Order: sequence, then structure tokens, then C-alpha cells
Amino acid sequence: MRGLMQDGSLDIGVLLRRADLGFRHKRVVTATASGEVISTWGEVMDRARRLSAVLDVLEVPRSARVATFGWNSQRHVELYLGVPSAGRILHTINHRLFTRDVAHIMSDAADDVVFVDRSLLGTVWDVVRSTATVRWIVVMDDGGEEEIPADPRVVDYEALLARCPEPAPAVRVDENDAASLCYTSGTTGRPRGVLYSHRSIVLHALLLLGADSFAISERDVVMPVVPMFHVNAWGLPYAAMLAGADLVLPGPAMAPENLIRQLSRHRVTFSAGVPAIWRALEPLLGTADLSSLRMVVSGGSALPDALSEAWARATGVPITSSWGMTETSPLVACGRVSSAHDALPADDRRRLRGQPGPTVPLVDVRIVDADGRPVERDGVSSGELQVAGPTIAARYFGADPGTSSFTDDGWLRTGDVATLDAFGYLRIVDRTKDMIKSGGEWISSVTVENELMAHPAVREAAVVGVTDDRWGERPWAYVVLAAGEEIDETGLRRHLRERVASWWVPDRFLIIDEIPRTATGKFSKVALRDLAESTAASQPL
Amino acid sequence: MRGLMQDGSLDIGVLLRRADLGFRHKRVVTATASGEVISTWGEVMDRARRLSAVLDVLEVPRSARVATFGWNSQRHVELYLGVPSAGRILHTINHRLFTRDVAHIMSDAADDVVFVDRSLLGTVWDVVRSTATVRWIVVMDDGGEEEIPADPRVVDYEALLARCPEPAPAVRVDENDAASLCYTSGTTGRPRGVLYSHRSIVLHALLLLGADSFAISERDVVMPVVPMFHVNAWGLPYAAMLAGADLVLPGPAMAPENLIRQLSRHRVTFSAGVPAIWRALEPLLGTADLSSLRMVVSGGSALPDALSEAWARATGVPITSSWGMTETSPLVACGRVSSAHDALPADDRRRLRGQPGPTVPLVDVRIVDADGRPVERDGVSSGELQVAGPTIAARYFGADPGTSSFTDDGWLRTGDVATLDAFGYLRIVDRTKDMIKSGGEWISSVTVENELMAHPAVREAAVVGVTDDRWGERPWAYVVLAAGEEIDETGLRRHLRERVASWWVPDRFLIIDEIPRTATGKFSKVALRDLAESTAASQPL
Repeated sequence: MRGLMQDGSLDIGVLLRRADLGFRHKRVVTATASGEVISTWGEVMDRARRLSAVLDVLEVPRSARVATFGWNSQRHVELYLGVPSAGRILHTINHRLFTRDVAHIMSDAADDVVFVDRSLLGTVWDVVRSTATVRWIVVMDDGGEEEIPADPRVVDYEALLARCPEPAPAVRVDENDAASLCYTSGTTGRPRGVLYSHRSIVLHALLLLGADSFAISERDVVMPVVPMFHVNAWGLPYAAMLAGADLVLPGPAMAPENLIRQLSRHRVTFSAGVPAIWRALEPLLGTADLSSLRMVVSGGSALPDALSEAWARATGVPITSSWGMTETSPLVACGRVSSAHDALPADDRRRLRGQPGPTVPLVDVRIVDADGRPVERDGVSSGELQVAGPTIAARYFGADPGTSSFTDDGWLRTGDVATLDAFGYLRIVDRTKDMIKSGGEWISSVTVENELMAHPAVREAAVVGVTDDRWGERPWAYVVLAAGEEIDETGLRRHLRERVASWWVPDRFLIIDEIPRTATGKFSKVALRDLAESTAASQPL
Repeated sequence: MRGLMQDGSLDIGVLLRRADLGFRHKRVVTATASGEVISTWGEVMDRARRLSAVLDVLEVPRSARVATFGWNSQRHVELYLGVPSAGRILHTINHRLFTRDVAHIMSDAADDVVFVDRSLLGTVWDVVRSTATVRWIVVMDDGGEEEIPADPRVVDYEALLARCPEPAPAVRVDENDAASLCYTSGTTGRPRGVLYSHRSIVLHALLLLGADSFAISERDVVMPVVPMFHVNAWGLPYAAMLAGADLVLPGPAMAPENLIRQLSRHRVTFSAGVPAIWRALEPLLGTADLSSLRMVVSGGSALPDALSEAWARATGVPITSSWGMTETSPLVACGRVSSAHDALPADDRRRLRGQPGPTVPLVDVRIVDADGRPVERDGVSSGELQVAGPTIAARYFGADPGTSSFTDDGWLRTGDVATLDAFGYLRIVDRTKDMIKSGGEWISSVTVENELMAHPAVREAAVVGVTDDRWGERPWAYVVLAAGEEIDETGLRRHLRERVASWWVPDRFLIIDEIPRTATGKFSKVALRDLAESTAASQPL
């Protein structure tokens, strides 16, 4: 028997109607190269509804992909709202990807229209221009100095809005309709598209309001440093709108000094980004008043304890870890310490905070062994992390459905190796592909990296497996020293011997200036492995 | 185009799986007549799954109604979980209703099985026994001394559980399936059934975790004083489970001294109930350590400012108002003060806190005039409050669909008169039926009552409209004095003259010992109007 409750579609209209009711006066601030633009949610929504009318003028078909290359800006938020609520699909693209990946993504998505910040024209024009399906290229003038190409498809964002003074007529969308599309970063292969539904976006926004996740409230000032082309900026623009929070967007002004200035100037209470951002800001923490901060979230790659502690010392707010993937909307877990762990020594609690931690509601997780059987939830037994739920992808969009990424019973195989304890506390041990198999036993490269980075002389460390005749694989460490610090291999070796099993200590320690990164800022283990293998080949031990 | 996200059904299994993952160790405490029973969510869930097997043993058909007459207890929570997750419908019944209403409700619902606390057998046995559809009567022995009737349909809860040592096989439910049924209190007519879906229950539980609603967290100790037969105890057992909070249930020990003792003994952080409960507890606030409290919620009828302030003085925690109905799951609004109101004087902020306040996400509200047109959202223009969304009823269950309670476009007509301001702040002016029409203008009985109750000599006040030859209707006030206080009609009249329009001052003030209440503890305006009309007839002014 069906319940007799209203259908109450979980679509992006929920956010718009709610903000209309109570939050039209709340602020949306965008930093620009030369200053900032201060607007309100009311103005943003009005412009978003006119943007929907622009899509009609451009004759963008229902469900067509509307691509964006943009910084975190008010216009990008207008696209976040105006595209899906008009029944089209927002397709955010990372302009930092290699051109061949962007070309693949645009071709796979068959983008119909492209919106691009003027300051990014130099980076993406060639690939945009040569994508066959693109009918219109809408330039958003962010004060960049790139020349506007003389191409008949090029139109100006504000000129189009000016042609549409009235909002588009409301379009009926179903909660299961596609709302947005984001491609994975492709660290493990070609980028693959994740097609979010309206329902998954609204549920995910609700999750971010939860007291034990990000607790986003009407009183918050939210600044997403995570780019808006990364998994809907981790859902933060939508959550901020649902909660009625102010939103501060760093725009193209992503230099550490600019970010610190925004955090301080707008009394930001909540921010989120990748560890590399928080590391870059750390030397500047003493230079600004950050007393408004209540929560700083890190995600996208492992959070070194030492970094979180440095923030705690400087601001009183440790960095909170989180865990998720493009396929998971992304939030799966958020490193709060549960009451069950209150009795632990402070150091253990600190280390827990650096782990993904308790999962959010609605998301199911399990850890399975190589045969797909669940392992003990004892905090020790590890296996592949698999996830399921209404905010998790069921398959990929486009030519490659990526079937092998999903189990027969429909769960997403994350490719991460993890443990769960009896309190539901999730710890990531390693990426499956980043585990090092030495003498038939597994070595966790992440653990060794974390212990290395805990040494005050080490700024960053990456550990990779190198082919070894005797053991199959052996770990090598690449280390970037902190400014003005010195330590040699003997010192690093001694440091690690006290902290990990002796056979986990890398065979070699190589001091380098910078660790190669992927386009999304993660350590490029692929590049390091190539480097190590060629070094090993030329300099046998 | 459909999004490619997993279906992730929003059914009660979401709560069970989540608690299994992380919260099996958290506590569920039930006070009994003689002490208390301390259990865990793990034990509660295991027993709930065996209870599902009991339903199979009793051959309860899919979608059949399983009625309960029970206090707030662990076994009642087991029914909350075990009945809907097994595809049957939990039907909680208020044992304080008049027998004819209970008989109507049970007949309308066609209950198949009844679960009843032993201590309530004396109250409900006759009506349960004579309901034709009831095949089994399961007695839950709560230490009550009522005799167990010698009826072949009577079975013992624990004996049945003992017969089912294994959990029932999982039943597949759809999120739109019916999960539970609750009848309105029938203040405006015969009780009518609201049939909640799994989806509405899960979404409502998520809403209670929101930072700006109840912010229920893993660290909370939640004590629902609101009975479990009132709108799923306002969703609190489900929300506590989803958050992983401890749950403290007062059982039959509802005397104020017992409630205060439970709040203190278990370091309760969050509690919710009707104003009458908080008023009854107020004189005892100095007798116990209530320093653990972070939020006390009032709902079900208007919260007098003076009561909230008395709590704030004694505990540091003002009472937070909330607004909802059986038809709305129930939470629609929660009286937090928004940042927009921070600049108001303290007294104005205090008064705001006594109003329903900002709405929760997912729920749409509008205020319409007599012609169904939206009124200005200026905080002054009033009209009928109408609500819509996935946690709102679409129609009623049973013989009477109550079509007139819904608009043509499917919104619920609440029957309350309200205003909205530009910040989405909801204020209830009055029940439509409690407005007094005097000389063609409306008088708000709630406003006059609140101003009367703000006088220190007044414990409670109810204002009703009495037929008047000249004005149509005129207000009369019924007043209960605070212990040891005295005030006469002249004093009350003078007090009101400074606070409301002169023509709002009641024609008569009658001091009585107690205000008659409905079975759900609300002022019975019907009884008072009858009383006033007969007084007017016998003692013309």
C-alpha cells in the first residue's frame, strides 16, 4: 500500500523556492582580479532564471549538455542553478586537464553550448573551437585580458542576459532527471562521466546541513576553495543556498595571499579544499584575523596530521578530513571524532580526525576481501571499500559505462583499501593501485608518507613501489624538504624505523624539489613510478 | 534524460543499516514504574527484526495495520522499526482519546493486530476487545498490575519473541510504501488518518539532523516526552537512530518529578514535548542538575513567552518553539532566530523565538487570502497557512479523504492564520476557527491569551468568542491564577489595555481552577465556548 504523502519532487527547484522564501538578502561575493563583486542570492536567482531563458533563445535542446570552463564565481553559480532547473545538464570541465583529456570529455559529452571565463580563453580555446558539437561559445567577461576570438559562435554572457529580461517559464523536471555531469580526473584511466540526478544533488545538499557532517547553517559564511569543476564544488554552493548561508567565491584570485584575505575580510566560517591549498596557506596563517572560522574541510587526497595540527595551533581550528569521489557526489565520510573515541589519548584522537571517519546518512559502506566477502569490522581487517546509496553513481555516462567499477549487486567499487571499526569509523589504508606488494605482503604507501611528513624537516613525501627481483616490489620515497631544513637518508630511515615495520622502510630516499602532480593536484604516482623505474634501470643498487 | 545515480530507496532500512554500522553500542533507556531498563540500539534492532518474524508467525498480511497503545518505551521503538521494515503499517493510537473516537479510529483503520502495554489494558480493553477486525491482542508487560483478560486472542509480547529467535527474512519495501498511520486529534471534527510513507519518515528524520532545525547529533541524549502515539513522537526516535544518539524514554513514569529525574540522571541534551509538560516541570527546575540540556523544544500548541523565559532563567536554555501538524510529519518550522533578526532588541528576539520561525528545508509554505491569492510577505498581512512537500500529507486514509483540507493544486490547508516576513519567518496568528470576528474585524485569541499569560499572576488563560447581538462575537477570557497569586478583573483589564487594541480586551474575565483540555492536552476551545454560551444564556450582561 502506498503512503498518502505528497510527491514533493527532490529537484533543484527546492533550493530556489527555499532561498526565495527566506534568503534573498543573503550575500554572494565573488573576488575578481581587481576587486570583488557583492551580490545577493536574490539577484543570483533572478539572473539564473533569465539564464534559463537564454538557453531557450540559443535553442539548447532539453537534456543537452551545457559545458562550463570557469573559476568559482557568481556567474558559475547562476549556471549551477539556471541550467538544471531548465531541464538541461550542467557539464563542468576542469580546464587544468591535459588538452587530449578535455577533447575526449567534450566529445564524449557531445556538449551543445560552452560557457567560458574570458581569462581561460587562452587555455581552452583550441579544444573548444574544434569540438564538433559545440554550437555556441558564451564568454563570461571576468576582467581577463584574453582577446575575444572572431568566431561566429562566440557570444557574450551579459549581452545574452540583457536580451532576456524575463525569467524562463517554469520547466517541469523529475527528481530522477539528470542535472549535472562531471568527469573523473582520470588518474586510473581515461576520464569517465558521472551524471548526477536532481535527487542526488538535493539529498547531498541536505546531508551537508547535518549536525555531524558540515552543519552548514543560515549563520555560516561558506567559501568553497574547491573548484566548481570538481564534483559540483563538493555540493557547497547548493548546500549554502539550502541553508541560506552567505557564499564567498575566490574567482580567479587563487593565490594564497588572496585566499587568506577573503577568509578574513568576509569573516568566513566554513571553507573546504584540497590539502595542497591548506598547505599553501599555512605560512600565512599568522598574517590575518581568522577568528571567524569554525570548520575547515580537506578532501581529495590524504590529509597529513601535521598540517591539520599546524592549522589548529594557528587558528584554533584543526582541519577536518573528508572522503569522497566524483562518483559519490562526493561526501561519504567526515572525520569527526565520535563519542566512542572520547576516552582515547589526544594523539590518537588527532590521528582519527585525519581519517575519513564516520559516514554520512543514506550512504552504505562495506569492506570486502578479494573474493567479495565482507571482512571483520575490527578496525584492522582491510579490503576494498565499496559504497551504495542515492548519492552514489550506478554507472558512467557516455561511451564507457565502466562496468568493472561496479559489483554485480550494484555497489561502487572505490578502488581504495580501507578498514571499518565497530563504531562505523572508516579509515583509508591506501588506493588498491598504490599498495606495494613486497615479499607477498602489502605495504601501505600512504602510511609511510604520513609518517615521513610528520617529520618537521619534511614538507611533502610520496612513496611508490619499484620492481625488485627478490621481493617483487620495494618502496622508494621521494621527499621535498621544508624551507631551510636539512635531513639525510640516515635521519629519515631512523625516523621511520621507530614508526613502521622495518620492512616497510623504503629502500631509497630521494630528495627532490617538487613532487609531480596530476591535473587535479594529487601526487602523480604514475609519474613517480616511471621516474623510479628509470632511475633503478640506470643505477642498479 | 535520467541521471545515472543509484536508486537508494529512502526506506526505514536506511536507519537500521546505519545504526548497525556505527551505533549498536549507543543506549536506549526506558523508565518503568519501578526503575529503568537500559538497552542498546543493537539489542533494540535485533529484537525488532525478530518482531518482524512474529508478524509472520501471526500471519499478519502485507500492508495490514498493526495498532499500538503504548507509553514511550523500548518495545514501542521495536514496533516503530520492526513493523514498517516488514512491510506492515504501524498504527499508533492515543489511549487518552474518548472511547468513541478510539472505536472510530480502529474501525476506520481495520486494525489486524493490537499491541498494548499491560498498564493500559484497563483503559482500552473494552474497545480493543470489540473491534471486529482484530485477530490478536499482544500484551506488553510493563509492570502494570492490570489483569490479563482470559481471551483466546491475547498473547504475550516476550513469549512471541521467544518463539522467534531469528530475524525475519528481509522484505523489499518501496520508499513510497506506507510505513505508519496516525490519526489527527479531531479537535475540528472526527479524527482522520495520515498515512506516512517510508520516504516521508526518512526525509523527516534527515531534517531533524539539520544544523538549523534540531541539530540532532551522535553526541546527543534525546528524550522524547511527546508521546509515541503523537505523529511518530515528532520523528524523534527515527532521528535519534539516524544520528546515533542515545534515546531516553520516560515510559509510564510521566509525573513531573520522574521526568526531571530522567533529564538529570541521563544527562539528556535534547527534549521535546507540549507546553503543558514544560509548565508542569517549571516549579521543579531548581531541584535537579540540568546542565546537560542544549535544546528544549515545544510544539503542539502556542508557547507562552513567559514559560520559555522561566526555563531560560533556571537552566540557561530557553524553550524553542516549533510548529507542525499530524499532516506534516510534523516539523514545518522551528523557532530559531535568524541572523536577519540579530539587530532587534532582546525582547523582540525573545518574542520571535516563541513563534514557529524559519521553515525547514523541503517544505514549501504560502499564506493566502480568502480568495486563495498569496498575501504580501511583510510580516503583517495574514491569511491561511498552506504547506506542500514530500513530508506533507496529500489526502487522508480511510473512509473520509478530507478533500476540503486540500487545495485544488494539492497543498494542505492548515486552518491556521499566519504571516510570513521577507526572511521566511513564520508567525501563527491564530487557528481560523479560533479567530473571533467582532464588528466585522478579527481578534486573535492567541495574542490576547499570550498577553494575559505574560502577567505574573496568571498561570494559564484561554480566550473564546461568545455570540453577541451587537458585535456578532465578543471575546471572553478564562483565567487560571498562579499559586498564591491574586488579581481581579480590573487588574487584568488594565494589564491588557496597555498591550492590545481596546476592542480586543475581553468583555468578561472568569477565574477558573483549570482550563478544560482535549485528549491531546490542548485547550478545548469547544468546551469553553459551550461553557461561555451557557453562562451568557443564564447571566445576560
